[in-house]
Amino acid sequence: MSLLIDINGWDVAPWVERFARAMPGRMIVTPQDKFKPEDVEFAAVWKHTPGSLNRFKNLKVIFSLGAGVDHVLRDANLPDVPLVRLVDADLRDRMSEWVVLHVLLHHRQQRMYDFQQYEKLWEDDRFQPAARDVRVGMMGLGVLGQDAAKKLQAIGFDVAGWSRSDKQIEGLECYAGADGLAEFLARTDILVSLLPLTPDTRGVLNRALFEQLAKDGRLGGPILLNAGRGGLQVEADIVACLDDGTLRAATLDVFEVEPLPADSPLWHHPQVTITPHNSAISEIGAVTAFIVRQIERFEAGEPLEHVVDVKRGY
Amino acid sequence: MSLLIDINGWDVAPWVERFARAMPGRMIVTPQDKFKPEDVEFAAVWKHTPGSLNRFKNLKVIFSLGAGVDHVLRDANLPDVPLVRLVDADLRDRMSEWVVLHVLLHHRQQRMYDFQQYEKLWEDDRFQPAARDVRVGMMGLGVLGQDAAKKLQAIGFDVAGWSRSDKQIEGLECYAGADGLAEFLARTDILVSLLPLTPDTRGVLNRALFEQLAKDGRLGGPILLNAGRGGLQVEADIVACLDDGTLRAATLDVFEVEPLPADSPLWHHPQVTITPHNSAISEIGAVTAFIVRQIERFEAGEPLEHVVDVKRGY
Repeated sequence: MSLLIDINGWDVAPWVERFARAMPGRMIVTPQDKFKPEDVEFAAVWKHTPGSLNRFKNLKVIFSLGAGVDHVLRDANLPDVPLVRLVDADLRDRMSEWVVLHVLLHHRQQRMYDFQQYEKLWEDDRFQPAARDVRVGMMGLGVLGQDAAKKLQAIGFDVAGWSRSDKQIEGLECYAGADGLAEFLARTDILVSLLPLTPDTRGVLNRALFEQLAKDGRLGGPILLNAGRGGLQVEADIVACLDDGTLRAATLDVFEVEPLPADSPLWHHPQVTITPHNSAISEIGAVTAFIVRQIERFEAGEPLEHVVDVKRGY
Repeated sequence: MSLLIDINGWDVAPWVERFARAMPGRMIVTPQDKFKPEDVEFAAVWKHTPGSLNRFKNLKVIFSLGAGVDHVLRDANLPDVPLVRLVDADLRDRMSEWVVLHVLLHHRQQRMYDFQQYEKLWEDDRFQPAARDVRVGMMGLGVLGQDAAKKLQAIGFDVAGWSRSDKQIEGLECYAGADGLAEFLARTDILVSLLPLTPDTRGVLNRALFEQLAKDGRLGGPILLNAGRGGLQVEADIVACLDDGTLRAATLDVFEVEPLPADSPLWHHPQVTITPHNSAISEIGAVTAFIVRQIERFEAGEPLEHVVDVKRGY
């Protein structure tokens, strides 16, 4: 009974080694190895080749090796077995580090102070709002969004959240669905997107949405952070909205095409901060432990955790 | 019965206006106004001219208008009346914003990503430790240090604190005094200084101290943050220690001479981030409310709060 590891874009070797150590006695294979396809019961994948999982007739579970499952669901011929998404405290904590850093970077106008340093300017009397007077809006209230919201609240920000379906989260003002979106956006100075990419959310970060963000905030205009997926955003709209003042600034960790092409105007846009899709890198040890635990549950007859609703897309 | 406001370096007008509104019926004067010196019972000061308070024979209390009282105590002819330091939740929260921002900026290697963006480089596979594997050391465990430590813990950092005298703070590993300093420094990857400036602490951030910081950390070398006072640091040592690798990087909000002189090598040092002593600017409304409350307590015969131990210096 084998575990297939199918990874594109990362080095597969350390994953094979880690799983081999964590599951002694079990065959760990990659698509390049020689093995009997009928032995494969589990597949752990990152951007596998669409259609390539169908030859494993005894496949029982597919695991995503990173946050999000859009990279799995783009496979139109995915075998009809449970798909388990990665839910991991380490990944969650790293995402919140990124969110808190970049919210504070805008809030404290650090880019302006970087420029002052470059110019050797000492101007210490600029207006600085307190965090409690800055409204952060968290789009996406899964494990990641809830944790980041809680940590932003601990720093003092005025945080609210939005999700597709109604959620009750203690201590957090929550908006939901199409009905709640306009109200949520109208009270948001810094929009943080941690949405999953689904057919419903593709391209949702566009001009029509940006124009609904708060215009009366303390930071001189609304700010966008996206660490969800690049497919959520319309980059032409982001650039145009930054240029005409609809948006004040943006920090992007994800892009329509990754790596971000050299000719993208985002690279050198003065109001844009770019990180290379590393807001929350899967820590190999933590991911391995999560998947091994799920396989053990499955083989003991217990229900798998964090199974994806394929129709909903997350 | 008058309140004297003596401010050097800031605009005094908004303070006069604010106090006048908060204390109707009371004379609010500045050293430039015409008034009877014997009417002055209270003085609220920021960098007043040493010796200038002695002519107020009926002075009862001196208030500091900013965090720290070194700017008051440098006056060798200070009248022998209670000196009250500013303790304010708004100031505290702003300082913690600054601390969390700049700890995260180093932790997440944002300066390297800024450089990658400038170079249009997409490198997403660099080693990134988790916050729990990075040890922050907080020097100074007053109201500001304790709050910043708590917020860094909320983000996930491994935080310990050091103070001159023994402190017991729930959930925080505390070191104290000369005896505890070496052990504290040896477990510190990011040193955050929020110390008061006193004869004991002047120049304490020097090479001998930096050399005791952890050499086995995850960030490639120890990092210094100072938002206490510039007099705590020996800038020649900071530059030399950055250049020889004793320090990996520094973020400084305070300087030996402020504004930082144009010829300081700190301005354009590649491993230095500079903010212009604005980590926690006194919010005029909050400061006014604090001082008015203390004057009311005093006049009602209640004890003043946060009176400085002049001998200790804070």
